[in-house]
Amino acid sequence: MNSNKPHILVTNDDGIRAPGLLALKDACAEIADVTVLAPSHNWSASGHVKTMHKPLRVDRVTLADGTEALSTTGAPSDAVALALLGVVERDIDFVVSGINRGANLGHDVTYSGTVTAAMEAAISNVPAMAVSLNTREQADFEPAARFAASLAEQTLERGLPDGILLNVNVPHLPADAIKGVCVTRMGLRIYRDELLKRVDPRGKPYYWIGGPEPTGIEDEGTDIWAVANGYISVTPIHLDLTAHDLLETLADWKLGMP
Amino acid sequence: MNSNKPHILVTNDDGIRAPGLLALKDACAEIADVTVLAPSHNWSASGHVKTMHKPLRVDRVTLADGTEALSTTGAPSDAVALALLGVVERDIDFVVSGINRGANLGHDVTYSGTVTAAMEAAISNVPAMAVSLNTREQADFEPAARFAASLAEQTLERGLPDGILLNVNVPHLPADAIKGVCVTRMGLRIYRDELLKRVDPRGKPYYWIGGPEPTGIEDEGTDIWAVANGYISVTPIHLDLTAHDLLETLADWKLGMP
Repeated sequence: MNSNKPHILVTNDDGIRAPGLLALKDACAEIADVTVLAPSHNWSASGHVKTMHKPLRVDRVTLADGTEALSTTGAPSDAVALALLGVVERDIDFVVSGINRGANLGHDVTYSGTVTAAMEAAISNVPAMAVSLNTREQADFEPAARFAASLAEQTLERGLPDGILLNVNVPHLPADAIKGVCVTRMGLRIYRDELLKRVDPRGKPYYWIGGPEPTGIEDEGTDIWAVANGYISVTPIHLDLTAHDLLETLADWKLGMP
Repeated sequence: MNSNKPHILVTNDDGIRAPGLLALKDACAEIADVTVLAPSHNWSASGHVKTMHKPLRVDRVTLADGTEALSTTGAPSDAVALALLGVVERDIDFVVSGINRGANLGHDVTYSGTVTAAMEAAISNVPAMAVSLNTREQADFEPAARFAASLAEQTLERGLPDGILLNVNVPHLPADAIKGVCVTRMGLRIYRDELLKRVDPRGKPYYWIGGPEPTGIEDEGTDIWAVANGYISVTPIHLDLTAHDLLETLADWKLGMP
């Protein structure tokens, strides 16, 4: 595996046994040499983790199609950190995370293990992409995988500025029903979380964060609008969270030590 | 505790027993009614978590000064979600997270339990602030706590736009040695993580993500520059991670389904 092809790291947050990972690996293998290093279990909504208080295992495993992969006890972002720090010996040209079962739109991005794995790569100035499919059901990952590989190929050719990742969301439609591809901005999610209080067999209360799936505001030009209207959404994401338009207002507050 | 004062929720990521939490609670109690709901253990570098795959406990505990507080098995962002979803009955006007032992500068913000707790509030359009002290040692939290309370008071008075949080970093200096307060943008962190491979008593390898503390690029006007030069840094943070300046470039790629 030391060809002249680029080298792609594939990871995810649904865990090493997820069918979305396999579909993504297969599609990427058409255009690159691929190493898979993914979490041993599901890390949905786990956020951007750097595991420093406990050690991490890395094990060789065999995927459902008989190919070799690496699995780790760490989070998705840990998997990327481990790979870039040397667990994977060959230099990595591109990191692709997914294909997540469930969209990662709007404010989902800071919660999402899929997206924060790609953030981890972007922080190390390795170009990266997160890919999610807008369904929670049994899914056909093939159209999303095919698009992801073609976008990876283009991105490797054209390059991305340092610190940028692409957040890709694909509607769950047959390939020929997908209307096209929109470059989008992040939309506004509407979370509908509800507190569910239960009582355990010993009479003590405990809580679930429950409630229906989030919706979102379908402003034209946003990721939420694109997927809701049958388009693949590609959002360029950076890690400068500064609210630049507030800097002046806050400076006018004339803050000082009390 | 149903006075005319505003109601502040205090949380953190170092855990309910951390002295930085107590200092922050005391300072906020000078200007508001305070409820403490914080994780039962340390969640450093845990990221933006929404715990949905397991239930969460909330317990009444007594802090070192004899006051009552709530502790949860969830992450810092879960603590905020639980409080806003109704575990805390009274409406919350402001969320303050900290005082973290260790700065949260530049790219630290997406990893940080302290900052992602404040993000959780901002996503629900509750104004919020994360406060961190730039030391890993035994620390005097008093100057940072005093500044945090005064900034909370001003923010409650003036208001913040929806979806905004303030990321506050305080240099570890005596109050009279602090040079002033700078409104800053996020700087660039330089992580120096190293992979440490060890072998367990049964001959199997495991890995630590180790290495020295991160440094950063001391560009004037950034959070990293301010703290390094003896100023308190206040960075307005929003959750629109769109790289707006790349939208046009990517649109020119003319992406489509392959």
